[in-house]
Amino acid sequence: MSTVVDLDALRVSVTRQGAQVRDLKQKGAVAESVKEAVDQLKKLKLELETQTALQGPAKDGLSKSDKKALDDLLLRKMFVVPSFEIYGGVGGFYDFGPPACALKSNLLQFWRRHFVFADKLLEVECTNLMPEVVLKTSGHVDRFTDLMVKCTKSGECYRADKLLEDHVENYLDKHTNLSQEEREKHEIHATMAESYSPEEIRAVFQEYGIKAPGTGADLSSPIPFNLMFKCAIGPEGGMVGYLRPETAQGIFLNFRRLLEYNAGKVPFGCAQIGNAFRNEISPRAGLLRVREFQQAEIEFFVNPKDKSHAKFSTVKDLELPLLTKTNQLTHGKAVQMTCGNAVEQGVIANESLAYYLARTYLFCKAIGIDMERLRFRQHLDTEMAHYATDCWDLEIKLSSGWVECAGHADRSCYDLSVHAKKSNVEMVGTHKFDKPEKRQIVEIKPNKGKMGRTFKADVATILEALQALTDDVARAQAFEDELAFQGRGDAWATMVSEEKFVPSVIEPSFGIGRLLTAVFEHNFSTREGDQKRGVMSFSPHIAPIKVSVLPLSNNPAFDPFAAELERLFVEEGLECKVDTSSVAIGRKYARADELGIPFGVTIDFDTVKDRDVTLRERDSTVQVRVPMDAIGAEVSKLVRGSASWEQILERYPKVTAVAE
Amino acid sequence: MSTVVDLDALRVSVTRQGAQVRDLKQKGAVAESVKEAVDQLKKLKLELETQTALQGPAKDGLSKSDKKALDDLLLRKMFVVPSFEIYGGVGGFYDFGPPACALKSNLLQFWRRHFVFADKLLEVECTNLMPEVVLKTSGHVDRFTDLMVKCTKSGECYRADKLLEDHVENYLDKHTNLSQEEREKHEIHATMAESYSPEEIRAVFQEYGIKAPGTGADLSSPIPFNLMFKCAIGPEGGMVGYLRPETAQGIFLNFRRLLEYNAGKVPFGCAQIGNAFRNEISPRAGLLRVREFQQAEIEFFVNPKDKSHAKFSTVKDLELPLLTKTNQLTHGKAVQMTCGNAVEQGVIANESLAYYLARTYLFCKAIGIDMERLRFRQHLDTEMAHYATDCWDLEIKLSSGWVECAGHADRSCYDLSVHAKKSNVEMVGTHKFDKPEKRQIVEIKPNKGKMGRTFKADVATILEALQALTDDVARAQAFEDELAFQGRGDAWATMVSEEKFVPSVIEPSFGIGRLLTAVFEHNFSTREGDQKRGVMSFSPHIAPIKVSVLPLSNNPAFDPFAAELERLFVEEGLECKVDTSSVAIGRKYARADELGIPFGVTIDFDTVKDRDVTLRERDSTVQVRVPMDAIGAEVSKLVRGSASWEQILERYPKVTAVAE
Repeated sequence: MSTVVDLDALRVSVTRQGAQVRDLKQKGAVAESVKEAVDQLKKLKLELETQTALQGPAKDGLSKSDKKALDDLLLRKMFVVPSFEIYGGVGGFYDFGPPACALKSNLLQFWRRHFVFADKLLEVECTNLMPEVVLKTSGHVDRFTDLMVKCTKSGECYRADKLLEDHVENYLDKHTNLSQEEREKHEIHATMAESYSPEEIRAVFQEYGIKAPGTGADLSSPIPFNLMFKCAIGPEGGMVGYLRPETAQGIFLNFRRLLEYNAGKVPFGCAQIGNAFRNEISPRAGLLRVREFQQAEIEFFVNPKDKSHAKFSTVKDLELPLLTKTNQLTHGKAVQMTCGNAVEQGVIANESLAYYLARTYLFCKAIGIDMERLRFRQHLDTEMAHYATDCWDLEIKLSSGWVECAGHADRSCYDLSVHAKKSNVEMVGTHKFDKPEKRQIVEIKPNKGKMGRTFKADVATILEALQALTDDVARAQAFEDELAFQGRGDAWATMVSEEKFVPSVIEPSFGIGRLLTAVFEHNFSTREGDQKRGVMSFSPHIAPIKVSVLPLSNNPAFDPFAAELERLFVEEGLECKVDTSSVAIGRKYARADELGIPFGVTIDFDTVKDRDVTLRERDSTVQVRVPMDAIGAEVSKLVRGSASWEQILERYPKVTAVAE
Repeated sequence: MSTVVDLDALRVSVTRQGAQVRDLKQKGAVAESVKEAVDQLKKLKLELETQTALQGPAKDGLSKSDKKALDDLLLRKMFVVPSFEIYGGVGGFYDFGPPACALKSNLLQFWRRHFVFADKLLEVECTNLMPEVVLKTSGHVDRFTDLMVKCTKSGECYRADKLLEDHVENYLDKHTNLSQEEREKHEIHATMAESYSPEEIRAVFQEYGIKAPGTGADLSSPIPFNLMFKCAIGPEGGMVGYLRPETAQGIFLNFRRLLEYNAGKVPFGCAQIGNAFRNEISPRAGLLRVREFQQAEIEFFVNPKDKSHAKFSTVKDLELPLLTKTNQLTHGKAVQMTCGNAVEQGVIANESLAYYLARTYLFCKAIGIDMERLRFRQHLDTEMAHYATDCWDLEIKLSSGWVECAGHADRSCYDLSVHAKKSNVEMVGTHKFDKPEKRQIVEIKPNKGKMGRTFKADVATILEALQALTDDVARAQAFEDELAFQGRGDAWATMVSEEKFVPSVIEPSFGIGRLLTAVFEHNFSTREGDQKRGVMSFSPHIAPIKVSVLPLSNNPAFDPFAAELERLFVEEGLECKVDTSSVAIGRKYARADELGIPFGVTIDFDTVKDRDVTLRERDSTVQVRVPMDAIGAEVSKLVRGSASWEQILERYPKVTAVAE
């Protein structure tokens, strides 16, 4: 195997090169250097693609045919179906059918217990529609955009960068006799397409005389297209509203009341489960990129000077698969590291962030994610928002590759600061000292007369800027200019018993549709050698239906037993499904397997005689014989996890295997 | 008390008169007769209002001061707060804070168990955004409107009918010397305002020369304003979408897949819990009329020829408070009637509808609604949508009067029919006969030549209409015209084993915000003589927090006990709240009462000695002494309803009452 290229090493090269490209772009490097770096990146990506194909599919992923079988099952059993299907559907919208609805409800209930209940987080439910001021302040109105051009004839819209890339490609295909230098001049435009400003890309469009595909008509100037859905609120139509693109903002807006609810104490966390909406230009099939989706988010507010977590000791020794930013640029492999070590060595920025990585890890384990196909990938420095200090994505390996299913970001105090500034509502926590501490205070006493003579009309602006200085050193500096001030303000020492701070925010944010996709893919298999017999191995506590009741045939003698079993399970609070159809028992098992029902109870002719039933475990297909009077309690224990299948095997006689 | 006017009788008169007004309007009666009927209605309403005021507030409702105390509590304890509060809020939008979030989650979980789980309903979760075709077909694009006029200067919008009413009132105030006949001519315009068409109201506006209030500028022509929020879907902006005004449509769109999921069998029901959006012109304070709200709806599909319900026998003997349409027009009182009698006597149209009334009744009882302030009010014939056959509102008496909190409508086959027609997708159930039945079949065999000569260009239209005839009698009739047809089509008898039908839909639909408001109002009280000590008597199974842990003081000796209790309750799966603040125990009880925590466990100095704690029941404030080792299990049993407080009182010594 010495000739096999190391894929991990290749991935590292791609990552490093990608980081370099972003770095060059951010620094505003000359287009030629960017082009060179991008070319190298393209080469590396191609190589990685080729080598991945050569070495075959990942051994742990779904095969192509299994993926097809899964997609077929999800649709056929009404887990996930296209919305408005009878009208042809609309890209990026999906409905959840009965089994997925129950699965999602169970998953969210468990999320709530695991995160909210266990850590006594607060919870809010805010509106989906929000007035413009909220999302203008958060930055979404300005930043949540792609550049669009519009055909002046048909009105059809195009992403400007994609159009430019296509145009350059066509141009070069048609003009094969260009010099190398000329070719590169054109290629640069394609390379830079994504990072051009509206003015820049407009100039390039004019240079090429790019027209609308299809019609050949003129194109409008490039305009930024915001991915938020916009509506008018109220009858006047003058109030602009947006469907929220994330649930987080509602929590920030309620910070003051939440703080009060928490008796004024920081740290505290607040969760929200709800919908978010993004008007994606190219939604993908399935739940990975949709226009309406569900999020479960936590905003954990901490003192920026102390991001320790009270329960960190409970996860300190837990090992996590961490793909650090350093590793992404060296060997490209995730390494196992305990939370304690990761924080100590500065790999994870602080305890609170590490605590939530650990909780997420345990959550994934409990909902049946394959822990061999999960990692936490740290954002590279070039990747993070300017205000963020450390970010880790939960990535799960799916058939389409590693997919981000949750994010964990230390967003610093950005959101609270901008909303506080815009709304003029103070959003601070208070740190009470154990005993009063000595502080230097500098007070600004401007000499307005002197200032007026010197600065004239600018006095008001300067005074405002001076008053806004919060840093004592900066304030002291302002006094250096004796011309403007009455004299140097004396710094004096005073005793203070508390200090105010704008809390930092640690944000674990889960995409529920993506997590469900992961649960589907990691729990799907087909029975040996039979592509048509799909099995969903959902963990019993999130399975949509817990137990099936399966009479061997539709013989009326079985009916009273089926009714009795149903009553038993309803009393135990277990969702059950009775299959009284006339199909063979093997077909009934297959149906139950497709819905991921973990346990099946069969009624046969012996049941009529001795009141014993057969209990079947879905994944092993092993069956035992259990008395009717014990079956309710036993299945209940199995579902709630207070008994294991091994214990059942010890207690009840195994049924000699019958080919299903 | 012989001088006291019978309010119920007065209400009957108002109802009868209201029905007559609607009837006149629907029949297109001359404006004078409508005016006369409306005047009489106004007189009766005034009399009712005066008499109600004279006889004082309803003895069972909240007093004004208690209502104020409740509103204050809901805001202060962050049950329900205005959304975007730091930016001044927007009418009709509210956020749920931590206690209401948990309460709502518990209520919805219970709704799901009570309706979905117990009756094995299917469940779906569809998108909030829907393309225009869906809501155009359902009728919402055309019907969900109010008439608006717009100021040509300021752009401000007004409801045309309200503006006209105000104008007439002002006009009459200023022109006191009009003859009776002239006055009435003007009054008619105000009376008819609500029912004018855009053209009619425009003519009246011109007649009066009505200008915009404030600016005095010209007004636009009246245009219908749709209450749905409109957005563009996709980057092109050409696809119109709406936020759904009800969750029901998503279920209808999925009918075919749901039917298949249910193995092709009708009846079956499908539920959906989700948001709905209405751009109300005048939202009210509180959760009663908001722009974004949550619904829980069931669509129960039945054979229109057989609306019996398999589980009807389980509710047959349950007595319901029914305010029938007859009673609304006679004595105005709700009467107690068993479901069985109501269906037998034709008071409730069918078993399926009655079954759901009964289930709703039991649901309300379980969530703590005062059953003395609840009734089912039947829609008058003039009130129902044209396609509906019988409707019953669940009405709950709140401080603002009787409020509709859920509807139960037999919507016949309207929705499925219109969607099937528009989408060309067949939406039918199949009724398989026990044995084949004889049917008369009439086949249409048009003589196209003859028809062409007679009808010329209209032949295609006539053929289409003929083929669409489903009723055999109508088809036979079509053959009467021998001119157009080859001859009378012979009707012949054939044996059929099944027949197709478009299912009727029974729809129970709950407004969650309104139900929560009812839960708040019916469970709020103040401790005797102390307006400031509010108590929320939530039923333990929906209470947001189940138990409070209250150390007598912040003495460190209590800390390990508080921690132990918290651990115990978490293990039992019980939401608990530990109050380690330094306030007096009475204050701690008061705080717990405001959040509706049903049980409180106090740690005192005796606990340190003998490991016994005090267990307090919220509503009676009675306390017993329970050993620490038993407290987890006992509270768990109380919350889950497997033990009563009376049983606890029998088993444990009562603590001598201390004034709280």
